Amino acid sequence: MDFISIIEARRDRRIHSEEELKFLAQSAAAQSVPDYQLVAWLMAEYLNPLTEGETATLTTAMAATGDRIDLTGLPKPWVDKHSTGGVGDKTSLVVLPILAACGLTVVKMSGRGLGITGGTVDKLESIPGFRMNLTPEEMKDQAKKIGIAITGQSPNLAPADKTLYALRDATATTESIPLITSSILSKKIAGGCEYLSLDVKCGSGAFMKDFESAKKLATWLKNIGEQCGLKVHYAITDMDQPLGACVGNALEVREAEFVLDVNSGSEIPRPSVRFRDLCIQLAGETIAFVGKAPSVEDGVAQANSALTSGNAHAKFEEWCKAQGARPNWFSEMIELNDDIVVAELKSPTDGYLAEQNAGIIGEAVVELGGGRRTKDDKINPQVGVWLDHVVGDHVKTGDRLLRIYAASEDEAKKAADAIQSGIKISQALVPARSVVLATS
Amino acid sequence: MDFISIIEARRDRRIHSEEELKFLAQSAAAQSVPDYQLVAWLMAEYLNPLTEGETATLTTAMAATGDRIDLTGLPKPWVDKHSTGGVGDKTSLVVLPILAACGLTVVKMSGRGLGITGGTVDKLESIPGFRMNLTPEEMKDQAKKIGIAITGQSPNLAPADKTLYALRDATATTESIPLITSSILSKKIAGGCEYLSLDVKCGSGAFMKDFESAKKLATWLKNIGEQCGLKVHYAITDMDQPLGACVGNALEVREAEFVLDVNSGSEIPRPSVRFRDLCIQLAGETIAFVGKAPSVEDGVAQANSALTSGNAHAKFEEWCKAQGARPNWFSEMIELNDDIVVAELKSPTDGYLAEQNAGIIGEAVVELGGGRRTKDDKINPQVGVWLDHVVGDHVKTGDRLLRIYAASEDEAKKAADAIQSGIKISQALVPARSVVLATS
Repeated sequence: MDFISIIEARRDRRIHSEEELKFLAQSAAAQSVPDYQLVAWLMAEYLNPLTEGETATLTTAMAATGDRIDLTGLPKPWVDKHSTGGVGDKTSLVVLPILAACGLTVVKMSGRGLGITGGTVDKLESIPGFRMNLTPEEMKDQAKKIGIAITGQSPNLAPADKTLYALRDATATTESIPLITSSILSKKIAGGCEYLSLDVKCGSGAFMKDFESAKKLATWLKNIGEQCGLKVHYAITDMDQPLGACVGNALEVREAEFVLDVNSGSEIPRPSVRFRDLCIQLAGETIAFVGKAPSVEDGVAQANSALTSGNAHAKFEEWCKAQGARPNWFSEMIELNDDIVVAELKSPTDGYLAEQNAGIIGEAVVELGGGRRTKDDKINPQVGVWLDHVVGDHVKTGDRLLRIYAASEDEAKKAADAIQSGIKISQALVPARSVVLATS
Repeated sequence: MDFISIIEARRDRRIHSEEELKFLAQSAAAQSVPDYQLVAWLMAEYLNPLTEGETATLTTAMAATGDRIDLTGLPKPWVDKHSTGGVGDKTSLVVLPILAACGLTVVKMSGRGLGITGGTVDKLESIPGFRMNLTPEEMKDQAKKIGIAITGQSPNLAPADKTLYALRDATATTESIPLITSSILSKKIAGGCEYLSLDVKCGSGAFMKDFESAKKLATWLKNIGEQCGLKVHYAITDMDQPLGACVGNALEVREAEFVLDVNSGSEIPRPSVRFRDLCIQLAGETIAFVGKAPSVEDGVAQANSALTSGNAHAKFEEWCKAQGARPNWFSEMIELNDDIVVAELKSPTDGYLAEQNAGIIGEAVVELGGGRRTKDDKINPQVGVWLDHVVGDHVKTGDRLLRIYAASEDEAKKAADAIQSGIKISQALVPARSVVLATS
């Protein structure tokens, strides 16, 4: 087959045959056509997007370019949970233990963060000793024993996506709904799950800035996933302000542990309550979706009970231990390095918190060294931002709005200046914002 | 400057700044951005074409990426003649000597053929001893002495085009009018001419298949060329049937020599008359265009007189000699190699020749080894096709329609089969087709 004819078909909006899409996926996986020919197709696709049918065919073809993990032998249902990425999004760290505590088998391939959206791999790697490089066999063994396992993406899962994703990132062709869909789903299919629970983020700190585009992506993911044989549920959730109190890898693990550790006796601050509510809702939706609860209400009740009973916390501890976390990992990780400085940002006025822009705060954390600009950047796990409030809260002049964890006074100052531009305080009442905007 | 933002601008149909287009041209020339980023821009441009203003800016920027030949000291006017390429298009070989015989200075950078459209370089290189690798200095010296010089494109003229053209060819992005325009004109500007006489081919054997698209390209070339400081004239000419009798490098030189050598005493066959008429018309238009004749009619009369007086033939001989052709080059080159076989195709019926498809005949000659599929292919100069008729002629059953010059019986047979599909004979009268369809 001639790759030029595939480029021409896309360029001229002709529907691709299955053979063409298989050839495309295989060529990308094997890197057997030049990058510039793949990019010609990618830009043509961006401007003349694939249909749903073509996207389903491409997704299946991409999933078939590498290994497929066979979960046979593990207790059903096999669930994967995926977020499209946001600022402060440590949901997996709480939802996965809840689901495992409720009897689901949770197997997850996770990625590293790029740009303002953090990656679960980076967060878990800030736990002293935590191993993210489980082999498929180790992952299966662990999931069989404790119901939960996570690994960094293996290079043999959907290698076609690896090639295409890297090229899209370098050629302004990332924001194509069909290609985002096939990228996410091809890896999930190769990962072997039956059920996929999606958290599609929406707002300034997410890929999809408005509800309409988030809804479109969610719908595509559900439709194409189902055409490819997965069962798919989605929630569209708010990412206009950061999720929870903490942004930054170690701070986020700390917040997750705090939410899980119901016996600590401390009162949970308002941003973390918002985060906890989302976790319970997402877990409850998922429990109902896989058929372990007759209704979402019942699923939510199960999730709530797993959390308040301490079962989810116990499962989290078991999970960390199974993947190599050192016994005293928590006290080790909350010990800050000597060079970390903590600065505070205070309210200049009385009023209602109208905005704490997730995009701007996410950028500031990347700038502090807490995220990556390119895939080879090193991360400082201890830097980040800790918010005291959620949008809608009333604040008084001099009230602390947030703390900044930085590697120097200078960087803390720069971050404070940047974040200030993303904070708005209004004299008029501002309603609190729902965290779940829609579900499938 | 960030190349991604240039890709995004094109992708989103934003008008490029001059700085962006200069950066693009310089990046292509220096190959300082990856090919796949250039291609992302090229495909975005194909689908969201540049405006005329952007194209003029890009053309000037591309011309500035390499050397510019300075013709100061040569008698004016300085003319270049360019054809967009067709099958059997050996026009330069006759028009250039006519123009030089009429006192114009003709300096031409020429290219090799790719696909069905032959290149003047290849045709002239079939002349024993003819040197195409003149340096700019040699070219100027020769043009000063005899009014005419030609060279293969120097790698230092518009190197941006070299990079972009090679990528366009491999990524289905050739057929963009703004990019064709900037590719042709940037080299012409760098070549130093004042006047550019364009022959835009139109039909099955040309890049532009219909009059409308040929007219569009011609108009762009004229408008953009003038915005870039060139004086531009165009003719749109027929390429539905091959031009003249011969297709194939040595055969075409033979036909040109035959048309120029008015003292040979032989009667000129009908296809060659059609070719000669075009040469006289194009030369006459050009002579008037540069101000050496008060009207096209007068220009045509000058061209006709240069041809019939033998002055153009003498100029051609002088030119060949100046560029190294051996004294007996013509008798050397008409001597066929032992392995060349000549097959004939005859009319199966009485009727009027309604079609001899230039695209199909051009393809057949490439297949015979007379053209290149890729730029590294070797050419056999002796193979080709020699037509006996033009569209509109009446033929009888058994009349010879054409001869095929091939490197084996087998290849001759294949070519005959292929060409047969491109020949139509009609019972109804078919009007002869004009060779010049429009001029500026």
